[in-house]
Amino acid sequence: MSGEKVKVAIVGSTGYGGVELIRFLLGHPLVEITSVISSSSSGVPISEGFPHLTEIIVQNLDGVDPELIAEKADVVFTATPSGVSGKLVPELLNAGLKVIDLSGDFRIKDGQIYESWYKHEAPQADLLAQAVYGLAEITGEQVRGAELISNPGCYPTATLLGLIPAVEAGWIDPASIIIDAKSGVSGAGRGTSLMTHYAEINENLKVYKMNRHQHIPEIEQVLSEAAGENVTVTFTTHLTPMTRGIMSTMYATLKGICTEADLIGLYRKRYEGRPFVRIREAGSWPATKEVFGSNYCDIGFAVDERTGRVTIISVIDNIVKGAAGQAIQNLNLAMGWEEDCGLKLSPVYP
Amino acid sequence: MSGEKVKVAIVGSTGYGGVELIRFLLGHPLVEITSVISSSSSGVPISEGFPHLTEIIVQNLDGVDPELIAEKADVVFTATPSGVSGKLVPELLNAGLKVIDLSGDFRIKDGQIYESWYKHEAPQADLLAQAVYGLAEITGEQVRGAELISNPGCYPTATLLGLIPAVEAGWIDPASIIIDAKSGVSGAGRGTSLMTHYAEINENLKVYKMNRHQHIPEIEQVLSEAAGENVTVTFTTHLTPMTRGIMSTMYATLKGICTEADLIGLYRKRYEGRPFVRIREAGSWPATKEVFGSNYCDIGFAVDERTGRVTIISVIDNIVKGAAGQAIQNLNLAMGWEEDCGLKLSPVYP
Amino acid sequence: MSGEKVKVAIVGSTGYGGVELIRFLLGHPLVEITSVISSSSSGVPISEGFPHLTEIIVQNLDGVDPELIAEKADVVFTATPSGVSGKLVPELLNAGLKVIDLSGDFRIKDGQIYESWYKHEAPQADLLAQAVYGLAEITGEQVRGAELISNPGCYPTATLLGLIPAVEAGWIDPASIIIDAKSGVSGAGRGTSLMTHYAEINENLKVYKMNRHQHIPEIEQVLSEAAGENVTVTFTTHLTPMTRGIMSTMYATLKGICTEADLIGLYRKRYEGRPFVRIREAGSWPATKEVFGSNYCDIGFAVDERTGRVTIISVIDNIVKGAAGQAIQNLNLAMGWEEDCGLKLSPVYP
Amino acid sequence: MSGEKVKVAIVGSTGYGGVELIRFLLGHPLVEITSVISSSSSGVPISEGFPHLTEIIVQNLDGVDPELIAEKADVVFTATPSGVSGKLVPELLNAGLKVIDLSGDFRIKDGQIYESWYKHEAPQADLLAQAVYGLAEITGEQVRGAELISNPGCYPTATLLGLIPAVEAGWIDPASIIIDAKSGVSGAGRGTSLMTHYAEINENLKVYKMNRHQHIPEIEQVLSEAAGENVTVTFTTHLTPMTRGIMSTMYATLKGICTEADLIGLYRKRYEGRPFVRIREAGSWPATKEVFGSNYCDIGFAVDERTGRVTIISVIDNIVKGAAGQAIQNLNLAMGWEEDCGLKLSPVYP
Repeated sequence: MSGEKVKVAIVGSTGYGGVELIRFLLGHPLVEITSVISSSSSGVPISEGFPHLTEIIVQNLDGVDPELIAEKADVVFTATPSGVSGKLVPELLNAGLKVIDLSGDFRIKDGQIYESWYKHEAPQADLLAQAVYGLAEITGEQVRGAELISNPGCYPTATLLGLIPAVEAGWIDPASIIIDAKSGVSGAGRGTSLMTHYAEINENLKVYKMNRHQHIPEIEQVLSEAAGENVTVTFTTHLTPMTRGIMSTMYATLKGICTEADLIGLYRKRYEGRPFVRIREAGSWPATKEVFGSNYCDIGFAVDERTGRVTIISVIDNIVKGAAGQAIQNLNLAMGWEEDCGLKLSPVYP
Repeated sequence: MSGEKVKVAIVGSTGYGGVELIRFLLGHPLVEITSVISSSSSGVPISEGFPHLTEIIVQNLDGVDPELIAEKADVVFTATPSGVSGKLVPELLNAGLKVIDLSGDFRIKDGQIYESWYKHEAPQADLLAQAVYGLAEITGEQVRGAELISNPGCYPTATLLGLIPAVEAGWIDPASIIIDAKSGVSGAGRGTSLMTHYAEINENLKVYKMNRHQHIPEIEQVLSEAAGENVTVTFTTHLTPMTRGIMSTMYATLKGICTEADLIGLYRKRYEGRPFVRIREAGSWPATKEVFGSNYCDIGFAVDERTGRVTIISVIDNIVKGAAGQAIQNLNLAMGWEEDCGLKLSPVYP
Repeated sequence: MSGEKVKVAIVGSTGYGGVELIRFLLGHPLVEITSVISSSSSGVPISEGFPHLTEIIVQNLDGVDPELIAEKADVVFTATPSGVSGKLVPELLNAGLKVIDLSGDFRIKDGQIYESWYKHEAPQADLLAQAVYGLAEITGEQVRGAELISNPGCYPTATLLGLIPAVEAGWIDPASIIIDAKSGVSGAGRGTSLMTHYAEINENLKVYKMNRHQHIPEIEQVLSEAAGENVTVTFTTHLTPMTRGIMSTMYATLKGICTEADLIGLYRKRYEGRPFVRIREAGSWPATKEVFGSNYCDIGFAVDERTGRVTIISVIDNIVKGAAGQAIQNLNLAMGWEEDCGLKLSPVYP
Repeated sequence: MSGEKVKVAIVGSTGYGGVELIRFLLGHPLVEITSVISSSSSGVPISEGFPHLTEIIVQNLDGVDPELIAEKADVVFTATPSGVSGKLVPELLNAGLKVIDLSGDFRIKDGQIYESWYKHEAPQADLLAQAVYGLAEITGEQVRGAELISNPGCYPTATLLGLIPAVEAGWIDPASIIIDAKSGVSGAGRGTSLMTHYAEINENLKVYKMNRHQHIPEIEQVLSEAAGENVTVTFTTHLTPMTRGIMSTMYATLKGICTEADLIGLYRKRYEGRPFVRIREAGSWPATKEVFGSNYCDIGFAVDERTGRVTIISVIDNIVKGAAGQAIQNLNLAMGWEEDCGLKLSPVYP
């Protein structure tokens, strides 16, 4: 770098993932934000729609123009909706940019599976093949030097980090996995709908997309690789009356006798040296607020001898480790920087 | 009544005021709901949009047809947006219906003032003159037998019940009145907008419509009558992270020396025999949750000898006493029934 | 009754279950509340601690005196903590009162199992044998005429109503049952603790009592009876940032091929004629707010052909169907009244 | 500094102010936390009570021992309750420490006034005289080099920053000032009470300490100095269902004709060069969430020509600018560092 900062642009700056990228990148010592981009609001200051950025980001929003982005930046984050990224990313790559994509468009390797869950056309097959799935603690090695990184989904991040060590080790039966996942409302994005109306979701708890959530094939794809066999999971999503946070409560049948201490040991070893996964002591389980605003993923275990099952609790902040934070973690890995560069913020508590 | 129930219809059944009318009218012993009406969703069961009414209201929504309403009902509640009622109510009256209007269209007696605050055309002047403003505890006598009742706004209800006795008695200086009002999000209705997005208003507190709220002229009109002089108020509205509830915190300069006990005595006398206004003991101030789901308005006082001012706290449930509950109270008064008929539900706590 | 109302007393009136009993019993046409009782606050009006009851309940709180209660009342609800009821109920029965107990003390038939989960001494065995477990829609027939009714726990109510028809019919494998349960904070009672501190649980989601919740043996006892074999379940409880509501998300392996329509048919038949269980249409799942403040239990299904599992969603208001409402339902059944007498309140929405 | 970091200790590390000091100081480039101190929990890791600090702060909590603190640290923050600081601070000063006190004990210069509001004995008069009141943007010059800094209260910070420029300029009548203040629940601290019980304050809005809040004399003391005359204010505090945030809605009579643009100009000039006060554009008013987690104070204005009054809206995060953030800002000023060192975190949104 020879003292010069890497220039980054953010497409989709006016979504929740976009403003969270801004919050962290502003404190990143090796990066400079040179363009904040919005397809809908270009030409006005971002603080018009996000007054919390008053006097912090004073530049106007740019429009979506790959050539212009390439002039201004070296790396671009695409925090765009699924379907949009699939079309935009090839242009950005052609313009010579390194791309970290936060949509789901490049996560599913098999275009047919993508289309059956996402209900629209998959990106071109060569790009699906080229994209590196950036679940930092698992596939971080592959991210290094990649030109196109596909940032994992929020639910898959919490879920996979909580399951992979036990699946890899063969300690749980992959066919028995049931995932009961809960998310805060920000996961639905900033678009307005009855589902996100305060009076409808405050003091309420509801399920949605029963057995149809597009994160299912993503979870199965990665778990299958970890298990060395095809894995099919039951996965249920709940909307909870909070803004941020995901908890995956995961159930699986233990293949042999193992204690909570055994699991803690296994997981601590698996995640050794990784700054953002914290394995809790026996008898302690993480709550979502304990990672609020931070890039941590906290994991705890309860073994039930009566049923022979383990319950694994994994929590993240859906906008940070589940989106913007992990995207920056991937940038750090791709650039060969310290993994936690710019991400060393403690959780905001209470 | 000779055993026969009065038939009522509800236009705007798919708004929050509409479903709250349904909740109370279902338990009203002298009333039968014969038609639930929606301009946007006619032909489908109301439980499609409001699953909490599954097996409770099984009839389909009707469209807005005054002749048909008149065939089915004797009385109609119009829980329609401002602007819509102004045009619809004349047709309903012509069809022979008694109308209780929950929009703001018939509250302001002076059409010009209406237009300067509501920013659209006022209803015809004769109807403005005919409409009885139904602030039950104050103007209830005039409601009896009325054909067109204009139900007060939510903020004006809490505010006026809290101020009128002191203004009438000349104990406070009307020119000094400042009203700091706070509302839950349901007051904004069921329409979707960024303002009502859960992630935007949860863990947030914001002001809106500074000095421009259309409830200002309504408050001033009624206070001016109570004071016998023109009253102008400062009135600020806040959106708070809760679904229901309004609190008006009201400040005024005392004209002479008076204690909290004096005020309590004055107010208890003024509201004697009225079942829905509760004046708190000295040293106790009402909280919004203490009237949640009920038709009560609770009022408390704090006199500050240091400043010579009184602070008056008045709370209601904005959808009940501030809308549907008071509308039914007005129906009861108009029909000569007990004021609290069908309204005797305790607050839901916690 | 020949016009005379049954006199009821409430022990534990200053807990959340107690004030909810008051809310419903005030509207019950066949009942009169003659004594509200509190061990800690006797001699003062209940509205001191619960201002929402101002002018609604004006009588002072009585102390806990079985003889006095028997003078004043025919039936007593004991909304007392576990451990307290076990000692008090025998005295109340001896004094000639009919008792409906809302603590957990008389739910577990086997005293040893009780002690291993509740961690204190079980009530005397003959009373455990005498007590009728009042899960109204399942054991309602046995409640008729009973002198001691043990009201089910909140989690067991939601869970058992959601599972029993499928278990009884042999459609699901009892050994596969996993219950992921979520509750609002009121379930923890009115006592203060760090767990119920607003700043700790707002914007938070946490698990508690992992594999140690005292409702586990209650669920297993009833399910075992329904299955005709010993059933052991995995049951996890979550605290969610809302005041009221329980959702049980339940997972089980289907024994054969069956559709959502099949399940809906089975459940509707099983609960035919019962006013408070609502089985949702295919593709619709209940949310907790859709039963808020009411005695309903709403149930929905999702069959996943990929995994051969069914997910069952069951929601209740924990203080109503999970406590006070079902207790009154049991009173109605015990007295031979209409099951829904005094309970016909619609959910409060939004 | 010659490369060496200043060593700081935090007394009261297990309160909300204490953990927030930790969050910011961990990212402060010129400071090292050498001791976290708690009178109640010494000897255990802080992460036992605050699991969000797992692997972030691993040292054990120390007890309160001034000599030991002086060995470990150069500067100490006392985030202790009022009454405790008054006794502890003299010992810390004697031990040679620089003290930044977050309790209210050293804010009121007149011991008698202190005692009449705080209801316990005032600290010794010479220390009251010595303590510098650290409202950074107003009295920051005096803080430089001070040995004992008294950090302002949360309400006074929001209120005074919103009022002082207009009072100093003589644009508003000081006798007319009415402050309607709202706070999140964290302001009540981590101690448990019915007032902070989730089920009691969720979906609720309540007033407290009517005309008796100990922040009143603090506000009046500073305003009187700004006005050059004795100022008495009406000040009401509300508890709102959110964790963080304070909004002061302030009303005052304008002495002459002035526009929102005039006020904006006046305030921008007054706060020129100060990084943490943001004056909003005309027609834009700040919401509490727009400063959540950050050290900003955002201010907006609404002039009402009808009443001749101005409404001033000022918001802060009560734990940051209202406590820990401003305390660090005072440290920076006292040390001659950049005012925003270690404090440059953007608000967390949403």
